[in-house]
Amino acid sequence: MTPPPDTDACLRDALDGAGLDPRLADALAYSVLGPGKRVRPRLCRMAAEAIAERAEHGPAAAIAAAAVELIHAFSLIHDDLPELDDDDLRRGRPTLHVHTSHALALLAGDAAHTLAFRLLARVDDATLSRALTAELADATLAMIDGQVRDTLGVDDEPDAEALMRTHALKTGALIRCAVRSGALAAGATEAQLVALSAYADAVGLMFQAVDDLLDVTATADTLGKATQKDADAGKTTFPGLFGIDGTRARIARYRDDARDALAGFGASADPLRQFAADLAARDR
Amino acid sequence: MTPPPDTDACLRDALDGAGLDPRLADALAYSVLGPGKRVRPRLCRMAAEAIAERAEHGPAAAIAAAAVELIHAFSLIHDDLPELDDDDLRRGRPTLHVHTSHALALLAGDAAHTLAFRLLARVDDATLSRALTAELADATLAMIDGQVRDTLGVDDEPDAEALMRTHALKTGALIRCAVRSGALAAGATEAQLVALSAYADAVGLMFQAVDDLLDVTATADTLGKATQKDADAGKTTFPGLFGIDGTRARIARYRDDARDALAGFGASADPLRQFAADLAARDR
Repeated sequence: MTPPPDTDACLRDALDGAGLDPRLADALAYSVLGPGKRVRPRLCRMAAEAIAERAEHGPAAAIAAAAVELIHAFSLIHDDLPELDDDDLRRGRPTLHVHTSHALALLAGDAAHTLAFRLLARVDDATLSRALTAELADATLAMIDGQVRDTLGVDDEPDAEALMRTHALKTGALIRCAVRSGALAAGATEAQLVALSAYADAVGLMFQAVDDLLDVTATADTLGKATQKDADAGKTTFPGLFGIDGTRARIARYRDDARDALAGFGASADPLRQFAADLAARDR
Repeated sequence: MTPPPDTDACLRDALDGAGLDPRLADALAYSVLGPGKRVRPRLCRMAAEAIAERAEHGPAAAIAAAAVELIHAFSLIHDDLPELDDDDLRRGRPTLHVHTSHALALLAGDAAHTLAFRLLARVDDATLSRALTAELADATLAMIDGQVRDTLGVDDEPDAEALMRTHALKTGALIRCAVRSGALAAGATEAQLVALSAYADAVGLMFQAVDDLLDVTATADTLGKATQKDADAGKTTFPGLFGIDGTRARIARYRDDARDALAGFGASADPLRQFAADLAARDR
């Protein structure tokens, strides 16, 4: 299998090749191919390109990028369901269960989850296929575990450590997986993997801190989704624990950590550097 | 990894080794390790043993058996949710969302789904690991697709062909996967795989026909779950299409098909033969 080089084309191939009932296929396309920043696939492919030129690492990085995005899509579909966050709006559009039905959204989330692993089984090199599967399964499980903590609460007195642990699981694990999968697909050495994992951990925390910050400083109109939801739901957030200025200081520190982690890389890692700088400066 | 030889011990290892939040771990244990006939893992291991002695095929068949059971557990947890069948009772106990909460049941189903693929990434032989992953992903996707057809309906005039297709997807795909995975783990030839797939297809149809028949002839007390639900929900069932006697005739035909598929095997396939005979005679 030689997938086309861009993530959306790769995702479209994965959906079209599955021979699904048209209602399920449409629901998946609505969520998986809808508007979105494709942050995780971009990170995956930038990490691969930090290690080797695109022509050298073949289609494995593109497959891994699409698989990570499918897991992200599954998690959003299920998180939006009434059982969890009960959100009606996502990326400026009705969430899937509002657009279709609760039953179909539940099953489409399940299908996206399966499609991710189905894609990874198509990687030519069996050892790499298995390594990517292990990486994605560990990250998905951590994400679900983080969602359990986030939904049911971690203890009576949420503290910074519990917040970090929940965020590292819920958001950070899949970002780390995206970066590591791209690196693995491009044949990274162990030392390169360690450095890129440190980069990913800083970006993951920054990602959540920026999200929490925008939740209190931006408007629903700017973000395309409801704001203040987390604070209203009594969830522990970065601004709730550290204040707005304290959150900004943390974002700056994570940005520096991300930059420092890439010190051993040359110009091939510039896109990763730019990504972290842009994320730190994000205001919508 | 050398898992213990029985499926429950292998499942327990998979759950214990995941380092999950105790609430999630407990929810998984309730559903995955609760009472159940473990039909799919038994089929997986009997298929492996039809091909080679247990000592020759190592732990891969046990891992595959546990992975198939995890997918089955995930599908039951999600099917029981209010979005789908809205069942309160399963195997004589409250369903997971009644026992815990809707949020935790949704997430525990997701975690069982991931754990299945996580287990398969632990198979020593990378090529076999990838083949088992592809087999399980295809079957899981078919199962979800079948659930979509079953839930949303297939057309205005359900006919026998549509029923067969839905059942083949919803129930048959995972049974076929269980048998094929065991055979693959034991090093089956292509001809052996074809024969065992035919056996599995007959058993899968028989399984659904027996289930539908008991739904109208047995009592809730005997089965440990609500009866007449499918008929009351207006779903197409074997007795609904073929009548009770017609369903019995079909069960006998599937039993003969299963027996005939194993004609090329010796005594090592006797447990598979016995399984099909017992299933055809099942009255509770």
